[in-house]
Amino acid sequence: TIIDVIEKHQSIDPFLQGRKVLVSAGPTREKIDPVRFFTNHSSGKMGFALAEAAAKYGAEVTLVSGPTALTVSNNKINRINVTSAQEMYEAMHDYFADSDIVIKAAAVADYTPKLVYDEKMKKQPGDLQIEMKRTKDILLSLGEIKSNQYLVGFAAETNNSIENGLKKLEKKHLDAIVINDISTKGAGFGGDTNIVTYVNKKQEQKDIELATKIEIAEKILRFIDRDMKDEKH
Amino acid sequence: TIIDVIEKHQSIDPFLQGRKVLVSAGPTREKIDPVRFFTNHSSGKMGFALAEAAAKYGAEVTLVSGPTALTVSNNKINRINVTSAQEMYEAMHDYFADSDIVIKAAAVADYTPKLVYDEKMKKQPGDLQIEMKRTKDILLSLGEIKSNQYLVGFAAETNNSIENGLKKLEKKHLDAIVINDISTKGAGFGGDTNIVTYVNKKQEQKDIELATKIEIAEKILRFIDRDMKDEKH
Repeated sequence: TIIDVIEKHQSIDPFLQGRKVLVSAGPTREKIDPVRFFTNHSSGKMGFALAEAAAKYGAEVTLVSGPTALTVSNNKINRINVTSAQEMYEAMHDYFADSDIVIKAAAVADYTPKLVYDEKMKKQPGDLQIEMKRTKDILLSLGEIKSNQYLVGFAAETNNSIENGLKKLEKKHLDAIVINDISTKGAGFGGDTNIVTYVNKKQEQKDIELATKIEIAEKILRFIDRDMKDEKH
Repeated sequence: TIIDVIEKHQSIDPFLQGRKVLVSAGPTREKIDPVRFFTNHSSGKMGFALAEAAAKYGAEVTLVSGPTALTVSNNKINRINVTSAQEMYEAMHDYFADSDIVIKAAAVADYTPKLVYDEKMKKQPGDLQIEMKRTKDILLSLGEIKSNQYLVGFAAETNNSIENGLKKLEKKHLDAIVINDISTKGAGFGGDTNIVTYVNKKQEQKDIELATKIEIAEKILRFIDRDMKDEKH
Protein backbone atom coordinates (compact mmCIF):
# COMPACT_ATOMS: atom_id res chain seq x y z
CA THR A 1 0.00 0.00 0.00
CA ILE A 2 0.96 3.63 -0.32
CA ILE A 3 1.22 3.88 3.47
CA ASP A 4 3.73 0.99 3.54
CA VAL A 5 5.81 2.62 0.83
CA ILE A 6 5.86 5.92 2.67
CA GLU A 7 6.70 4.25 5.96
CA LYS A 8 9.45 2.25 4.32
CA HIS A 9 10.93 5.39 2.85
CA GLN A 10 10.63 7.25 6.15
CA SER A 11 12.51 4.51 7.98
CA ILE A 12 15.59 4.92 5.76
CA ASP A 13 17.82 7.78 6.84
CA PRO A 14 19.16 9.12 3.52
CA PHE A 15 22.51 10.12 5.01
CA LEU A 16 24.22 10.09 1.61
CA GLN A 17 21.69 12.39 -0.07
CA GLY A 18 23.52 14.84 -2.32
CA ARG A 19 26.70 12.77 -2.46
CA LYS A 20 28.05 11.29 -5.68
CA VAL A 21 29.56 7.88 -5.03
CA LEU A 22 31.83 6.05 -7.46
CA VAL A 23 32.48 2.36 -6.78
CA SER A 24 34.59 -0.15 -8.69
CA ALA A 25 33.81 -3.85 -8.38
CA GLY A 26 34.75 -7.28 -9.63
CA PRO A 27 37.84 -8.70 -11.27
CA THR A 28 39.52 -7.65 -14.48
CA ARG A 29 40.47 -9.95 -17.32
CA GLU A 30 43.84 -9.57 -18.99
CA LYS A 31 43.80 -11.10 -22.43
CA ILE A 32 46.55 -13.38 -23.74
CA ASP A 33 44.76 -14.39 -26.96
CA PRO A 34 41.11 -14.66 -28.10
CA VAL A 35 40.56 -17.58 -25.72
CA ARG A 36 42.92 -17.29 -22.77
CA PHE A 37 43.21 -14.68 -20.04
CA PHE A 38 44.44 -13.97 -16.54
CA THR A 39 41.93 -13.07 -13.88
CA ASN A 40 41.25 -13.42 -10.16
CA HIS A 41 38.64 -14.74 -7.75
CA SER A 42 36.79 -11.48 -7.12
CA SER A 43 33.04 -12.07 -7.39
CA GLY A 44 32.16 -8.37 -7.33
CA LYS A 45 29.82 -8.91 -4.36
CA MET A 46 31.49 -6.43 -1.98
CA GLY A 47 31.52 -3.65 -4.60
CA PHE A 48 27.95 -4.32 -5.68
CA ALA A 49 26.85 -4.28 -2.02
CA LEU A 50 28.54 -0.88 -1.58
CA ALA A 51 26.85 0.49 -4.70
CA GLU A 52 23.42 -0.80 -3.64
CA ALA A 53 23.81 0.48 -0.07
CA ALA A 54 25.01 3.91 -1.24
CA ALA A 55 22.01 4.21 -3.58
CA LYS A 56 19.65 3.04 -0.83
CA TYR A 57 20.92 5.81 1.48
CA GLY A 58 20.38 8.52 -1.09
CA ALA A 59 23.64 8.79 -3.05
CA GLU A 60 23.90 9.15 -6.81
CA VAL A 61 25.92 6.06 -7.68
CA THR A 62 28.18 5.04 -10.55
CA LEU A 63 29.38 1.44 -10.45
CA VAL A 64 32.32 0.50 -12.67
CA SER A 65 32.22 -3.27 -12.88
CA GLY A 66 34.57 -5.88 -14.27
CA PRO A 67 33.08 -9.14 -15.64
CA THR A 68 30.76 -10.64 -13.02
CA ALA A 69 27.57 -12.68 -13.01
CA LEU A 70 25.88 -10.07 -10.79
CA THR A 71 22.98 -7.80 -11.62
CA VAL A 72 22.18 -4.46 -10.05
CA SER A 73 18.79 -4.36 -8.33
CA ASN A 74 18.52 -0.57 -7.93
CA ASN A 75 17.96 0.79 -11.41
CA LYS A 76 19.16 4.27 -10.43
CA ILE A 77 22.72 2.95 -10.29
CA ASN A 78 24.74 3.95 -13.34
CA ARG A 79 26.56 0.74 -14.22
CA ILE A 80 29.60 0.88 -16.50
CA ASN A 81 30.95 -2.49 -17.64
CA VAL A 82 34.65 -2.91 -18.30
CA THR A 83 36.89 -5.90 -18.93
CA SER A 84 40.58 -5.06 -18.56
CA ALA A 85 42.59 -3.11 -15.99
CA GLN A 86 43.22 -0.44 -18.62
CA GLU A 87 39.48 -0.04 -19.28
CA MET A 88 38.82 0.17 -15.56
CA TYR A 89 41.52 2.83 -15.20
CA GLU A 90 39.88 4.90 -17.92
CA ALA A 91 36.34 4.55 -16.57
CA MET A 92 37.40 5.48 -13.03
CA HIS A 93 39.22 8.56 -14.31
CA ASP A 94 36.20 9.54 -16.43
CA TYR A 95 33.97 9.72 -13.34
CA PHE A 96 36.47 10.69 -10.64
CA ALA A 97 36.40 14.50 -10.92
CA ASP A 98 32.64 14.59 -10.45
CA SER A 99 32.55 12.25 -7.42
CA ASP A 100 32.49 12.91 -3.67
CA ILE A 101 33.23 9.41 -2.42
CA VAL A 102 35.31 6.95 -4.44
CA ILE A 103 35.63 3.35 -3.32
CA LYS A 104 37.85 0.95 -5.17
CA ALA A 105 36.49 -2.48 -4.32
CA ALA A 106 37.57 -4.04 -7.63
CA ALA A 107 40.40 -6.56 -7.73
CA VAL A 108 42.33 -5.10 -10.62
CA ALA A 109 45.09 -7.15 -12.23
CA ASP A 110 48.54 -5.82 -11.30
CA TYR A 111 50.08 -7.37 -14.41
CA THR A 112 48.95 -7.84 -17.98
CA PRO A 113 50.61 -9.77 -20.83
CA LYS A 114 53.07 -7.69 -22.84
CA LEU A 115 51.97 -9.38 -26.05
CA VAL A 116 48.35 -10.08 -26.92
CA TYR A 117 47.82 -12.56 -29.77
CA ASP A 118 45.05 -11.90 -32.30
CA GLU A 119 44.78 -15.59 -33.06
CA LYS A 120 44.66 -18.46 -30.62
CA MET A 121 48.20 -19.37 -29.54
CA LYS A 122 49.10 -22.90 -30.68
CA LYS A 123 50.57 -24.98 -27.93
CA GLN A 124 54.16 -26.11 -28.34
CA PRO A 125 56.07 -28.87 -26.64
CA GLY A 126 57.93 -27.68 -23.57
CA ASP A 127 57.66 -24.73 -21.27
CA LEU A 128 56.36 -21.28 -21.95
CA GLN A 129 57.34 -17.95 -20.51
CA ILE A 130 54.67 -15.31 -20.39
CA GLU A 131 56.06 -11.80 -20.23
CA MET A 132 53.91 -9.53 -18.10
CA LYS A 133 54.09 -5.80 -17.56
CA ARG A 134 52.61 -3.75 -14.71
CA THR A 135 49.17 -2.26 -15.22
CA LYS A 136 48.59 1.35 -14.22
CA ASP A 137 47.86 1.66 -10.50
CA ILE A 138 44.34 3.09 -10.43
CA LEU A 139 44.21 3.99 -6.73
CA LEU A 140 47.66 5.59 -6.76
CA SER A 141 46.77 7.68 -9.81
CA LEU A 142 43.51 8.82 -8.20
CA GLY A 143 45.28 9.58 -4.91
CA GLU A 144 47.70 11.84 -6.77
CA ILE A 145 45.02 13.96 -8.46
CA LYS A 146 42.36 14.04 -5.79
CA SER A 147 40.96 17.34 -4.52
CA ASN A 148 37.92 16.93 -2.26
CA GLN A 149 37.12 13.31 -3.02
CA TYR A 150 37.07 10.91 -0.09
CA LEU A 151 39.13 8.05 -1.51
CA VAL A 152 38.81 4.54 -0.10
CA GLY A 153 40.78 1.46 -1.06
CA PHE A 154 40.54 -2.20 -0.23
CA ALA A 155 43.41 -4.43 0.79
CA ALA A 156 42.84 -8.15 0.31
CA GLU A 157 45.74 -9.76 2.09
CA THR A 158 46.76 -13.26 3.09
CA ASN A 159 49.37 -12.28 5.70
CA ASN A 160 50.24 -9.25 7.88
CA SER A 161 47.00 -7.79 6.63
CA ILE A 162 46.79 -4.69 8.88
CA GLU A 163 50.44 -3.78 8.35
CA ASN A 164 50.19 -4.20 4.57
CA GLY A 165 46.92 -2.28 4.52
CA LEU A 166 48.39 0.69 6.41
CA LYS A 167 51.32 0.88 4.01
CA LYS A 168 48.88 1.02 1.12
CA LEU A 169 46.81 3.75 2.83
CA GLU A 170 49.87 6.00 3.11
CA LYS A 171 51.53 5.23 -0.18
CA LYS A 172 48.37 5.84 -2.21
CA HIS A 173 47.18 8.96 -0.32
CA LEU A 174 43.93 7.30 0.66
CA ASP A 175 41.42 8.69 3.14
CA ALA A 176 40.59 5.23 4.39
CA ILE A 177 41.25 1.60 3.65
CA VAL A 178 39.16 -1.50 4.21
CA ILE A 179 41.42 -4.40 5.06
CA ASN A 180 40.43 -8.01 4.87
CA ASP A 181 42.45 -11.10 5.45
CA ILE A 182 41.14 -13.34 2.69
CA SER A 183 42.68 -16.41 4.29
CA THR A 184 40.17 -16.12 7.19
CA LYS A 185 37.05 -18.27 7.00
CA GLY A 186 34.01 -16.09 6.22
CA ALA A 187 36.12 -13.31 4.68
CA GLY A 188 37.13 -12.38 1.19
CA PHE A 189 36.28 -13.44 -2.33
CA GLY A 190 33.22 -15.25 -3.58
CA GLY A 191 31.26 -15.59 -0.34
CA ASP A 192 28.29 -13.56 0.85
CA THR A 193 30.01 -12.57 4.10
CA ASN A 194 33.12 -10.69 5.05
CA ILE A 195 35.18 -9.64 8.06
CA VAL A 196 37.01 -6.34 7.66
CA THR A 197 38.89 -3.61 9.43
CA TYR A 198 38.22 -0.02 8.41
CA VAL A 199 41.15 2.35 9.02
CA ASN A 200 41.08 6.06 8.22
CA LYS A 201 44.08 8.30 7.63
CA LYS A 202 44.23 9.25 11.31
CA GLN A 203 44.77 5.50 11.77
CA GLU A 204 41.52 5.13 13.70
CA GLN A 205 40.74 1.47 13.37
CA LYS A 206 37.23 -0.06 13.34
CA ASP A 207 36.79 -3.80 13.24
CA ILE A 208 33.65 -5.03 11.52
CA GLU A 209 32.91 -8.56 12.66
CA LEU A 210 31.57 -11.35 10.43
CA ALA A 211 28.48 -10.04 8.64
CA THR A 212 26.90 -10.12 5.21
CA LYS A 213 28.57 -7.96 2.59
CA ILE A 214 25.39 -5.86 2.52
CA GLU A 215 25.66 -5.13 6.26
CA ILE A 216 29.37 -4.46 5.97
CA ALA A 217 28.78 -2.09 3.04
CA GLU A 218 26.37 -0.02 5.14
CA LYS A 219 28.82 0.20 8.04
CA ILE A 220 31.67 1.26 5.75
CA LEU A 221 29.50 4.00 4.25
CA ARG A 222 28.56 5.26 7.73
CA PHE A 223 32.23 5.38 8.76
CA ILE A 224 33.07 7.31 5.58
CA ASP A 225 30.21 9.75 6.15
CA ARG A 226 31.25 10.35 9.75
CA ASP A 227 34.90 10.90 8.75
CA MET A 228 33.85 13.38 6.07
CA LYS A 229 31.73 15.30 8.58
CA ASP A 230 34.56 15.25 11.17
CA GLU A 231 36.98 16.71 8.63
CA LYS A 232 34.70 19.69 8.06
CA HIS A 233 35.00 20.75 11.71
CA THR B 1 -1.57 -34.61 -17.41
CA ILE B 2 -0.38 -38.20 -17.28
CA ILE B 3 -1.32 -38.63 -20.94
CA ASP B 4 0.93 -35.68 -21.87
CA VAL B 5 3.82 -37.11 -19.90
CA ILE B 6 3.42 -40.51 -21.53
CA GLU B 7 3.11 -38.98 -24.99
CA LYS B 8 6.15 -36.83 -24.38
CA HIS B 9 8.14 -39.86 -23.33
CA GLN B 10 6.90 -41.90 -26.26
CA SER B 11 7.95 -39.21 -28.72
CA ILE B 12 11.58 -39.40 -27.59
CA ASP B 13 13.54 -42.11 -29.36
CA PRO B 14 15.96 -43.36 -26.68
CA PHE B 15 18.69 -44.13 -29.19
CA LEU B 16 21.42 -43.93 -26.54
CA GLN B 17 19.75 -46.39 -24.16
CA GLY B 18 22.37 -48.69 -22.66
CA ARG B 19 25.28 -46.40 -23.53
CA LYS B 20 27.49 -44.79 -20.92
CA VAL B 21 28.47 -41.31 -21.99
CA LEU B 22 31.29 -39.29 -20.41
CA VAL B 23 31.42 -35.57 -21.23
CA SER B 24 33.86 -32.91 -20.08
CA ALA B 25 32.76 -29.27 -20.07
CA GLY B 26 33.81 -25.76 -19.17
CA PRO B 27 37.18 -24.14 -18.62
CA THR B 28 39.87 -25.04 -16.14
CA ARG B 29 41.53 -22.63 -13.72
CA GLU B 30 45.28 -22.76 -13.25
CA LYS B 31 46.25 -21.21 -9.96
CA ILE B 32 49.10 -18.70 -9.61
CA ASP B 33 48.40 -17.79 -5.98
CA PRO B 34 45.31 -17.78 -3.68
CA VAL B 35 43.82 -14.92 -5.71
CA ARG B 36 45.09 -15.07 -9.29
CA PHE B 37 44.65 -17.68 -11.99
CA PHE B 38 44.73 -18.36 -15.71
CA THR B 39 41.57 -19.45 -17.42
CA ASN B 40 39.69 -19.19 -20.71
CA HIS B 41 36.35 -18.08 -22.12
CA SER B 42 34.63 -21.48 -22.15
CA SER B 43 31.15 -21.14 -20.66
CA GLY B 44 30.55 -24.89 -20.49
CA LYS B 45 27.33 -24.56 -22.51
CA MET B 46 28.31 -26.93 -25.33
CA GLY B 47 29.40 -29.67 -22.91
CA PHE B 48 26.33 -29.25 -20.71
CA ALA B 49 24.10 -29.40 -23.80
CA LEU B 50 25.78 -32.68 -24.82
CA ALA B 51 25.30 -34.13 -21.33
CA GLU B 52 21.63 -33.09 -21.19
CA ALA B 53 20.92 -34.38 -24.70
CA ALA B 54 22.68 -37.71 -24.03
CA ALA B 55 20.63 -38.18 -20.85
CA LYS B 56 17.42 -37.22 -22.65
CA TYR B 57 18.06 -39.91 -25.29
CA GLY B 58 18.58 -42.62 -22.73
CA ALA B 59 22.30 -42.64 -21.94
CA GLU B 60 23.80 -42.94 -18.48
CA VAL B 61 25.79 -39.71 -18.28
CA THR B 62 28.78 -38.50 -16.28
CA LEU B 63 29.63 -34.83 -16.73
CA VAL B 64 33.06 -33.66 -15.58
CA SER B 65 32.77 -29.92 -15.30
CA GLY B 66 35.26 -27.13 -14.74
CA PRO B 67 34.07 -23.99 -12.91
CA THR B 68 30.93 -22.67 -14.62
CA ALA B 69 27.78 -20.85 -13.55
CA LEU B 70 25.65 -23.60 -15.14
CA THR B 71 23.35 -26.05 -13.42
CA VAL B 72 22.29 -29.44 -14.68
CA SER B 73 18.56 -29.81 -15.20
CA ASN B 74 18.43 -33.60 -15.54
CA ASN B 75 19.13 -34.96 -12.08
CA LYS B 76 20.17 -38.36 -13.44
CA ILE B 77 23.39 -36.80 -14.72
CA ASN B 78 26.36 -37.62 -12.50
CA ARG B 79 28.15 -34.29 -12.23
CA ILE B 80 31.77 -34.19 -11.07
CA ASN B 81 33.18 -30.73 -10.40
CA VAL B 82 36.86 -30.05 -10.98
CA THR B 83 38.97 -26.89 -11.09
CA SER B 84 42.38 -27.49 -12.65
CA ALA B 85 43.58 -29.32 -15.77
CA GLN B 86 45.21 -31.91 -13.52
CA GLU B 87 41.94 -32.56 -11.67
CA MET B 88 40.11 -32.86 -14.98
CA TYR B 89 42.72 -35.33 -16.23
CA GLU B 90 42.21 -37.48 -13.15
CA ALA B 91 38.41 -37.38 -13.25
CA MET B 92 38.31 -38.28 -16.97
CA HIS B 93 40.66 -41.21 -16.39
CA ASP B 94 38.58 -42.38 -13.41
CA TYR B 95 35.47 -42.75 -15.60
CA PHE B 96 37.02 -43.57 -18.98
CA ALA B 97 37.30 -47.35 -18.74
CA ASP B 98 33.60 -47.73 -17.96
CA SER B 99 32.37 -45.43 -20.77
CA ASP B 100 31.14 -46.13 -24.29
CA ILE B 101 31.18 -42.59 -25.68
CA VAL B 102 33.64 -39.99 -24.41
CA ILE B 103 33.33 -36.39 -25.54
CA LYS B 104 35.87 -33.82 -24.47
CA ALA B 105 34.07 -30.50 -24.80
CA ALA B 106 36.04 -28.83 -22.00
CA ALA B 107 38.57 -26.14 -22.81
CA VAL B 108 41.45 -27.43 -20.73
CA ALA B 109 44.44 -25.17 -20.09
CA ASP B 110 47.48 -26.26 -22.11
CA TYR B 111 49.82 -24.56 -19.65
CA THR B 112 49.88 -24.13 -15.90
CA PRO B 113 52.24 -22.06 -13.73
CA LYS B 114 55.38 -23.92 -12.64
CA LEU B 115 55.25 -22.27 -9.23
CA VAL B 116 52.07 -21.83 -7.23
CA TYR B 117 52.33 -19.37 -4.35
CA ASP B 118 50.59 -20.17 -1.05
CA GLU B 119 50.32 -16.49 -0.19
CA LYS B 120 49.22 -13.67 -2.44
CA MET B 121 52.13 -12.52 -4.59
CA LYS B 122 53.09 -8.94 -3.76
CA LYS B 123 53.43 -6.80 -6.82
CA GLN B 124 56.87 -5.39 -7.58
CA PRO B 125 57.93 -2.53 -9.79
CA GLY B 126 58.77 -3.60 -13.32
CA ASP B 127 57.97 -6.62 -15.44
CA LEU B 128 57.22 -10.16 -14.39
CA GLN B 129 57.90 -13.42 -16.13
CA ILE B 130 55.51 -16.23 -15.42
CA GLU B 131 57.03 -19.64 -16.06
CA MET B 132 54.48 -22.08 -17.39
CA LYS B 133 54.72 -25.81 -18.00
CA ARG B 134 52.57 -27.99 -20.23
CA THR B 135 49.59 -29.71 -18.65
CA LYS B 136 48.96 -33.38 -19.45
CA ASP B 137 47.07 -33.76 -22.72
CA ILE B 138 43.85 -35.46 -21.66
CA LEU B 139 42.59 -36.39 -25.12
CA LEU B 140 45.95 -37.73 -26.25
CA SER B 141 46.26 -39.83 -23.10
CA LEU B 142 42.73 -41.23 -23.56
CA GLY B 143 43.38 -41.90 -27.27
CA GLU B 144 46.42 -43.96 -26.32
CA ILE B 145 44.60 -46.25 -23.88
CA LYS B 146 41.23 -46.55 -25.54
CA SER B 147 39.73 -49.95 -26.31
CA ASN B 148 36.08 -49.78 -27.45
CA GLN B 149 35.32 -46.22 -26.43
CA TYR B 150 34.16 -43.85 -29.15
CA LEU B 151 36.36 -40.83 -28.42
CA VAL B 152 35.35 -37.38 -29.64
CA GLY B 153 37.33 -34.15 -29.32
CA PHE B 154 36.55 -30.53 -29.99
CA ALA B 155 38.78 -28.12 -31.86
CA ALA B 156 38.13 -24.46 -31.17
CA GLU B 157 40.17 -22.66 -33.77
CA THR B 158 40.57 -19.11 -35.01
CA ASN B 159 42.23 -19.92 -38.34
CA ASN B 160 42.55 -22.92 -40.73
CA SER B 161 40.02 -24.58 -38.51
CA ILE B 162 39.31 -27.71 -40.60
CA GLU B 163 42.98 -28.35 -41.30
CA ASN B 164 43.95 -27.90 -37.64
CA GLY B 165 41.02 -30.04 -36.56
CA LEU B 166 41.99 -32.92 -38.85
CA LYS B 167 45.55 -32.87 -37.55
CA LYS B 168 44.20 -33.15 -34.02
CA LEU B 169 41.89 -36.05 -34.99
CA GLU B 170 44.84 -38.08 -36.29
CA LYS B 171 47.42 -37.16 -33.72
CA LYS B 172 45.15 -37.97 -30.78
CA HIS B 173 43.64 -41.18 -32.22
CA LEU B 174 40.13 -39.78 -32.06
CA ASP B 175 37.06 -41.37 -33.60
CA ALA B 176 35.62 -37.98 -34.46
CA ILE B 177 36.24 -34.32 -33.94
CA VAL B 178 33.86 -31.38 -33.74
CA ILE B 179 35.51 -28.34 -35.25
CA ASN B 180 34.38 -24.80 -34.70
CA ASP B 181 35.88 -21.58 -35.89
CA ILE B 182 35.39 -19.42 -32.81
CA SER B 183 36.12 -16.27 -34.80
CA THR B 184 32.82 -16.76 -36.72
CA LYS B 185 29.79 -14.81 -35.50
CA GLY B 186 27.34 -17.19 -33.79
CA ALA B 187 30.01 -19.80 -33.05
CA GLY B 188 32.17 -20.59 -30.09
CA PHE B 189 32.44 -19.59 -26.47
CA GLY B 190 29.84 -17.99 -24.26
CA GLY B 191 26.93 -17.81 -26.69
CA ASP B 192 23.88 -20.07 -26.87
CA THR B 193 24.49 -20.97 -30.52
CA ASN B 194 27.25 -22.64 -32.45
CA ILE B 195 28.27 -23.58 -35.99
CA VAL B 196 30.36 -26.74 -36.24
CA THR B 197 31.75 -29.35 -38.57
CA TYR B 198 31.71 -32.95 -37.41
CA VAL B 199 34.43 -35.10 -38.97
CA ASN B 200 34.88 -38.81 -38.25
CA LYS B 201 38.06 -40.82 -38.69
CA LYS B 202 37.05 -41.79 -42.25
CA GLN B 203 37.17 -38.02 -42.80
CA GLU B 204 33.44 -37.91 -43.55
CA GLN B 205 32.57 -34.30 -42.94
CA LYS B 206 29.16 -33.04 -41.77
CA ASP B 207 28.51 -29.33 -41.49
CA ILE B 208 26.03 -28.31 -38.81
CA GLU B 209 24.72 -24.86 -39.59
CA LEU B 210 23.98 -22.14 -37.03
CA ALA B 211 21.75 -23.65 -34.33
CA THR B 212 21.37 -23.64 -30.58
CA LYS B 213 23.95 -25.65 -28.67
CA ILE B 214 21.11 -27.96 -27.60
CA GLU B 215 20.20 -28.72 -31.23
CA ILE B 216 23.84 -29.13 -32.17
CA ALA B 217 24.40 -31.50 -29.25
CA GLU B 218 21.59 -33.75 -30.47
CA LYS B 219 22.98 -33.83 -34.01
CA ILE B 220 26.48 -34.65 -32.79
CA LEU B 221 25.12 -37.53 -30.69
CA ARG B 222 23.19 -38.88 -33.69
CA PHE B 223 26.32 -38.77 -35.86
CA ILE B 224 28.27 -40.60 -33.16
CA ASP B 225 25.57 -43.24 -32.78
CA ARG B 226 25.42 -43.80 -36.55
CA ASP B 227 29.21 -44.09 -36.80
CA MET B 228 29.28 -46.59 -33.94
CA LYS B 229 26.58 -48.69 -35.64
CA ASP B 230 28.42 -48.47 -39.01
CA GLU B 231 31.60 -49.71 -37.42
CA LYS B 232 29.86 -52.85 -36.17
CA HIS B 233 29.01 -53.88 -39.75
